[in-house]
Amino acid sequence: MPDTPFLHVDPARLDRNLAAMAGWAERHGVRLRPHAKTHKCVRVAQRQLAAGAVGLTVATIGEAEVFADAGFDDLFVAYPLWLSEDKARRLRALAGRVTLTVGADSVEGVRRLAEGLGGAPVGVLVEIDSGMHRSGVPADSVVSVADAARDAGLTVAGVFTFPGHGYGLDTARADAAEQEARSLAVAANALRDNGIDVSVVSGGSTPTARLADPGVVTELRPGVYVFNDAQQLELGSCGIDDIALTAVSTVVSASGSRVVLDAGSKILGADRPGWTTGFGRLADHLDARLVSLSEHHAVAEFPPAAVVPEVGDRVRVIPNHVCTAVNLVDELFAGPDPYGELESWPVAARGANS
Amino acid sequence: MPDTPFLHVDPARLDRNLAAMAGWAERHGVRLRPHAKTHKCVRVAQRQLAAGAVGLTVATIGEAEVFADAGFDDLFVAYPLWLSEDKARRLRALAGRVTLTVGADSVEGVRRLAEGLGGAPVGVLVEIDSGMHRSGVPADSVVSVADAARDAGLTVAGVFTFPGHGYGLDTARADAAEQEARSLAVAANALRDNGIDVSVVSGGSTPTARLADPGVVTELRPGVYVFNDAQQLELGSCGIDDIALTAVSTVVSASGSRVVLDAGSKILGADRPGWTTGFGRLADHLDARLVSLSEHHAVAEFPPAAVVPEVGDRVRVIPNHVCTAVNLVDELFAGPDPYGELESWPVAARGANS
Repeated sequence: MPDTPFLHVDPARLDRNLAAMAGWAERHGVRLRPHAKTHKCVRVAQRQLAAGAVGLTVATIGEAEVFADAGFDDLFVAYPLWLSEDKARRLRALAGRVTLTVGADSVEGVRRLAEGLGGAPVGVLVEIDSGMHRSGVPADSVVSVADAARDAGLTVAGVFTFPGHGYGLDTARADAAEQEARSLAVAANALRDNGIDVSVVSGGSTPTARLADPGVVTELRPGVYVFNDAQQLELGSCGIDDIALTAVSTVVSASGSRVVLDAGSKILGADRPGWTTGFGRLADHLDARLVSLSEHHAVAEFPPAAVVPEVGDRVRVIPNHVCTAVNLVDELFAGPDPYGELESWPVAARGANS
Repeated sequence: MPDTPFLHVDPARLDRNLAAMAGWAERHGVRLRPHAKTHKCVRVAQRQLAAGAVGLTVATIGEAEVFADAGFDDLFVAYPLWLSEDKARRLRALAGRVTLTVGADSVEGVRRLAEGLGGAPVGVLVEIDSGMHRSGVPADSVVSVADAARDAGLTVAGVFTFPGHGYGLDTARADAAEQEARSLAVAANALRDNGIDVSVVSGGSTPTARLADPGVVTELRPGVYVFNDAQQLELGSCGIDDIALTAVSTVVSASGSRVVLDAGSKILGADRPGWTTGFGRLADHLDARLVSLSEHHAVAEFPPAAVVPEVGDRVRVIPNHVCTAVNLVDELFAGPDPYGELESWPVAARGANS
């Protein structure tokens, strides 16, 4: 066993999660193009393709390079890239060896893209803001970006959106899925009315994936579902038995109903949306809460009647946001027993931010 | 210039920050043992020693190994270590080549430490909880841990605390510094009364360092002061001209008073205490706020009258918590002009969590 803290993957649960999402997509006639930013790991991506995924989604050119090097030949950079000279060179090189699609959400962005690509074959999906208010254009403005792309000589293949506002309690997931379907339908129809052959209508996100409208979307891009995390657990989009990754930690200090673990924000990440109940959950103590987090300490508070772990005990933490946790380590440790024999799975695209 | 996003260091500001803290320590007769977890970078640590630091503080055995390999010979692991068999072996190896001190805050921990060290020369500082309620024992319980350490054959050199509850607005910094002094004085006196030769009374934290009581502390362990960050700026413990590290990013999307930057939580970190005004600050637009953060997007909101950057413009982000930002990259880029010629400074101890 590696020294704590380390990230453990349960391969059986991982495979079950992959099969469940791929099965839903197949039953609903939707292509699955999972987001590799969650795992950044060739071993996981290979299992995703084996389970039925048609290709991968990535967030950066750097991630695309890592997966292209590993033999993946159909990649979508779901991001409104702004091409520096160097990024243009890197994107051209990628276009020469894989089927490549990129996002765009501005007239300036697509002009710059066309200029940087210099004719290299890259498909474009226009990003739609379906309510998250991050990047993307309103559905009814899609034509201006698509026209600029076409005028610049690029091929527009369709539209995509990320309904990230589905990360919330109560009706947030259902509302976001509904807005996703409505926005994508409006945008895709506007492109069709404008003479564009729309082959891709792409939605995303683990909380909303199974609520997507197969009458609208042709493709889904969930990421977190491979491992799940404390956010998904508290949103209700997974159960405790679907958690396939935990941070194995050691109790280093204890006082009454509180214990301090050696897993802090430098292995769990510091994500802590207001609707979560703490900085993560304890896999074997669901009644405890992580009430504070430092770089190398997590403080867990136990309820009055609970049996509290002792100094030296090992405790498995479910990170709030598994994508940022995985990006903090060079390798994942996989095997059926977190305290038994484990195999190293390199996080090949860790830190590939640009 | 590297592709955005990347972390830029201004060496002149860094050196000014190092000199200012070292000057304060020297004028007050206090030794400076800065915490290297902030920068994890040999180049920065060398400058700290050149500016007068007596040695380094680290958080993990892994960090200690990196700095020992780089020639640093006086290291304090400010953490209540629980020694696995492997960690015991690694700590013994370190003790054979550097002057080593470690933290402890429990009877079980020191017994395990003594057993694991098997006589290797390592000093012990007992950790005191001065009000943060993380690790550490109450000041009046210090003797039980010190006695256990002595009984197990370890040398207790004194006490340390981290007044992390000084991270707050209004009187938090002053209150925490006062509690730090009081707790350390009580604990040090209790050890002296018990016949222990107390040579180290160690305090810490950038917000409280210059409020420390030189009549009590013999040593200070600030970390963040080398670069500072948006937290320090908003706490009032540094000014805008003391910010020596920013994340250089590109505007990739814009809509009205909002722009989206390509620096997200995978380069800034997701730290966002309730008292901060957002997920970081913009170095050249102090009136803007980072209202939301995803892994590869930061959404900045500008006030009505502001000149808003355009798609393709570069924008420098001050991370909320520089320690977690630095831990996300393999190298820092240093030079007077963030858009000019830059030198690579490796983050040698990145990810050294165990």
